[in-house]
Amino acid sequence: MVRWEPGARDRLRAAALQLFADRGFEQTTASDIAESVGLTERTFFRHFADKREVLFDGQDLFQELFVTGVASATGGASAVDLVADALQTASAFFPDDRRAYSRLRQTIIVENPGLQERELLKMARLSEGIAVALRERGIPEPQATLAAESGVTVFGVAFRQWIAADERRSLAEIERDILGELRTLTAPAR
Amino acid sequence: MVRWEPGARDRLRAAALQLFADRGFEQTTASDIAESVGLTERTFFRHFADKREVLFDGQDLFQELFVTGVASATGGASAVDLVADALQTASAFFPDDRRAYSRLRQTIIVENPGLQERELLKMARLSEGIAVALRERGIPEPQATLAAESGVTVFGVAFRQWIAADERRSLAEIERDILGELRTLTAPAR
Repeated sequence: MVRWEPGARDRLRAAALQLFADRGFEQTTASDIAESVGLTERTFFRHFADKREVLFDGQDLFQELFVTGVASATGGASAVDLVADALQTASAFFPDDRRAYSRLRQTIIVENPGLQERELLKMARLSEGIAVALRERGIPEPQATLAAESGVTVFGVAFRQWIAADERRSLAEIERDILGELRTLTAPAR
Repeated sequence: MVRWEPGARDRLRAAALQLFADRGFEQTTASDIAESVGLTERTFFRHFADKREVLFDGQDLFQELFVTGVASATGGASAVDLVADALQTASAFFPDDRRAYSRLRQTIIVENPGLQERELLKMARLSEGIAVALRERGIPEPQATLAAESGVTVFGVAFRQWIAADERRSLAEIERDILGELRTLTAPAR
């Protein structure tokens, strides 16, 4: 019989992050995580396939938000307008009360090459997903891929700024600024 | 005593690629590669740390070409002009007689998630290296990172086109077109 633990998933996620940050990712086991919040290893594995997955939980939801954002964008018809709309939609995934979590997560990722590779693969898949959604809205190649990759670039640069010490602006606001910078930067040569 | 095998490295590289394509990357051993060109496994390991490295040989040289391209660019002073110059410099790494090799290599990479992750890490490092070179030329952030990532995007899209069936244009020529597309796409909103 499976016993339901209210909030177990959230508690496991928070505990894992803290242990990864304190002891290091490699030095923390699934059992350590479960025990630190009074749960069993078995409960851990009902929620996560392995300890790495704790850090990538929610990835599908974020990608879906972004892709749905492209599909439902109404702000403009150009490829970059569609991506700009989707960036704003997807930023709902990172409200301000998630900033501390995201900041801590980042310190864990950058210290572990295996996690970095996983993170890069996640961003590459996000880019592919956006390009597919753009093609479905009639944007041809290579514009679809260029706009998708530019969107992921803007998200990445904005995200790193969002988690910087003392940054207080929302992710959506930073993304608008960074997209503006990219537009100015790549403006056709005079 | 180490016996010098003239051309051993090139023969091992060509043989590895063919075996990976024919049998699959996982199913090919370093010993298989060496034996197929009449060399010993020991000779293989004098040239490559492992079979994966055969596919990433030359990566440092390519990155160096690109970064040197930024450092020595004279075509213009904007971040994107510097990157455009560097793209042209680095395209010397992919002359037309390398196209068949690159095409075959790509089919091996896309079939293996571990190789894909390694390839993504390579591109992420390339982007970081270009951003460093741009900052050294006085380009501030976030422009340096945006221009570096845009350069890698253009390279990636152009490269996939360069190895497409029936494509005959040089990589440098395709890169100029793709950069032009990106400039048009991200042109400031009217």
